[in-house]
Amino acid sequence: MKFDLDEATSVLSRTPETLKAMLNGLPLNWTENNEGIETWSPYDVVGHLIHGERVDWIPRAKIILEHGESRPFDPFDRFAQFEESKGKTLEELLEEFAALREGNLTALREMKISANDFWKTGQHPSLGRVALKELLATWVTHDLDHIAQIARTMAKQYAAEVGPWQIYISILHDRKPQSDQ
Amino acid sequence: MKFDLDEATSVLSRTPETLKAMLNGLPLNWTENNEGIETWSPYDVVGHLIHGERVDWIPRAKIILEHGESRPFDPFDRFAQFEESKGKTLEELLEEFAALREGNLTALREMKISANDFWKTGQHPSLGRVALKELLATWVTHDLDHIAQIARTMAKQYAAEVGPWQIYISILHDRKPQSDQ
Repeated sequence: MKFDLDEATSVLSRTPETLKAMLNGLPLNWTENNEGIETWSPYDVVGHLIHGERVDWIPRAKIILEHGESRPFDPFDRFAQFEESKGKTLEELLEEFAALREGNLTALREMKISANDFWKTGQHPSLGRVALKELLATWVTHDLDHIAQIARTMAKQYAAEVGPWQIYISILHDRKPQSDQ
Repeated sequence: MKFDLDEATSVLSRTPETLKAMLNGLPLNWTENNEGIETWSPYDVVGHLIHGERVDWIPRAKIILEHGESRPFDPFDRFAQFEESKGKTLEELLEEFAALREGNLTALREMKISANDFWKTGQHPSLGRVALKELLATWVTHDLDHIAQIARTMAKQYAAEVGPWQIYISILHDRKPQSDQ
């Protein structure tokens, strides 16, 4: 598929409800367990998505449109959620994410991006030159990556419980961290 | 985590809403494209989940409780959805899945399964002896596996569009079918 702003938005706008449907009200051992050392729980992932709404996607799109490559993006802190989520329930984080996403999709519409803007470029602190449409396509795939991560992390909690079926459930074999057997 | 019937049910009951939140009303190229030759689109996956509700989880649990190992499970047809979904919209399939799941969770409650039943066994046509709790834990991980598959399949539609970010979006590198580069 070629990047299309409406098609991209149709996925971005669904993520808050998808996460609420998956996670709201679940017993805590589903949402607070991770995949092993240095991996994230579903709770951690939602905090990471919140941080992205605050400092990544729309702020970077604005930098591209206003400054181009003359003003490089700020580096993204992949661990910000471990401070920022402290003391908050998962339900609070899911509401916070939904509100931020809604505001960012409004901001995106107000930017009135057209196909002529897709190849406008910015400077990523480690990737170098990137285009606006690449940033926006990455926003979409990043959502989907983390939805899959949440599903995988939850599935692995039952890795031992499925017994002989383990060979059929492919997701149990994806991304073995060091602490996995 | 050890298998727990209430905790398992809390995930199983969320899957229909999760799938509706992810997929209902999306442009068709998000839901009808797959990951390459012999892989499934999100539309195919929902049909597969429907077939499982009809012939797999609850029917097999009943066989275990009523017949034990004396009556082996029927083999599961992994391709049934290609016939059964014909002519149906994704919205229809999502409704059908939700209704079947609701009925099956009612049936599950009516079976009044206790921890004493967890190690009751049945005969799987290829895996051999399996326990009831393994079957029920597999139902949960199977849902989560296919939610992740849907997210991964959608993400891959933008694999080329994310440009240099491709190295950061791990899901784009999971499960390379032969037709992928």
